[in-house]
Amino acid sequence: MLDNLSLGRHISGQFNAELESIRTHVLAMGGLVEQQLADALKAMHKQDAELAKRVIKDDHKVNAMEVAIDEACTRIIAKRQPTASDLRLVIAIIKTITDLERIGDVAESIAKVALENFTNKQYNLLVSLEALGQHAVRMLHEVLDAFARMDVKAAIEVYQEDDRIDREYEAIIRQLMTYMMEDPRSIPNVLQVMWSARSIERVGDRCQNICEYIIYFVKGKDIRHTSQEEIESILK
Amino acid sequence: MLDNLSLGRHISGQFNAELESIRTHVLAMGGLVEQQLADALKAMHKQDAELAKRVIKDDHKVNAMEVAIDEACTRIIAKRQPTASDLRLVIAIIKTITDLERIGDVAESIAKVALENFTNKQYNLLVSLEALGQHAVRMLHEVLDAFARMDVKAAIEVYQEDDRIDREYEAIIRQLMTYMMEDPRSIPNVLQVMWSARSIERVGDRCQNICEYIIYFVKGKDIRHTSQEEIESILK
Repeated sequence: MLDNLSLGRHISGQFNAELESIRTHVLAMGGLVEQQLADALKAMHKQDAELAKRVIKDDHKVNAMEVAIDEACTRIIAKRQPTASDLRLVIAIIKTITDLERIGDVAESIAKVALENFTNKQYNLLVSLEALGQHAVRMLHEVLDAFARMDVKAAIEVYQEDDRIDREYEAIIRQLMTYMMEDPRSIPNVLQVMWSARSIERVGDRCQNICEYIIYFVKGKDIRHTSQEEIESILK
Repeated sequence: MLDNLSLGRHISGQFNAELESIRTHVLAMGGLVEQQLADALKAMHKQDAELAKRVIKDDHKVNAMEVAIDEACTRIIAKRQPTASDLRLVIAIIKTITDLERIGDVAESIAKVALENFTNKQYNLLVSLEALGQHAVRMLHEVLDAFARMDVKAAIEVYQEDDRIDREYEAIIRQLMTYMMEDPRSIPNVLQVMWSARSIERVGDRCQNICEYIIYFVKGKDIRHTSQEEIESILK
């Protein structure tokens, strides 16, 4: 799989080292975002205010990593003038970190909801997000794994996973809607749970974006706005 | 202002022509997205199913433009190996079209809501989105204008406009929440109006992103995750 990264192909060992360093930073950023998301969800389920505050406090680290990687990417393009797959790798990274940063924002917003006061009954609603949240964290973990190995097959599998997240999300929304109708006074709090459910569902979409960048890098093919069937045909 | 685009600075007239062509395509894409958003909002307010269907049908044009411009950007980096402000322009364009495409998705999703059946009473709720929607279209128009002239001062003005959109959005959400509590049977439809309000509000955030890319290109400074005060100090 490392062949895909075309490491060792360059005359300049320094260039290799720079590309590899950027890639390592993307994975570190991904690891931090995954941790932030998992911690935010945990803070919500356990009503752990300390943990929620730490997630909010640490969001700036994610942002700083995005800016630093972005700068490193621009620098490497200007200095090394990469072409073909090296250039695609840099472009894929520039796009990937945008999505990672937004997933970091989702973690922060969930942490903020975790700090709200919920009644015991409403707290049960937050628990209903647990499975969806775990699913999103798992999808993020898998897409980062696919990114680390630049594994197209794994990327396509993760891509398809989003359908299941969408279905889980829709079931939760229906449940929350029923709840609202039965107890209209709960509406403001239930809406917050809904916004959280929606932002978790969006994590799935962002993971799909990253899958697209992996495929773009490896296959040299832009599969955005491509049907599921066509994407599957890439594997054949 | 055209000085900012560093046109005429290149030895290669061909390179200039290529950069200029990409820029023209971005503005054409922006124009189409603005039209799509305005049409989607009009379709919603006038309950015009034909117009809504056209917006949905035309979304693929926005997507195709994004992919084509993205390819042109990668090609120009590989072929012309731009550095400094030329490179920043290409990177700014790659990021701008991602946000434009997502605004296109917002137009499509609003057009889908426009095709739903609303009772007369609920239809009044849709009308409550009109001012917010017009505001978002205006903000998009202004940011495209700032992009065309690469005008940092205009970009910062648009950037600040988002605060007002946020406040309008919050007022609408409060109003819709009251409505839900008074008439719980309306909840499913009111939620759709809420999702639309939220996606219109997000258009403002995306316009802010584009402002940041304009400033990044002109000033060579990444202002993401920077406080309002610091952004204002750029102008001084």
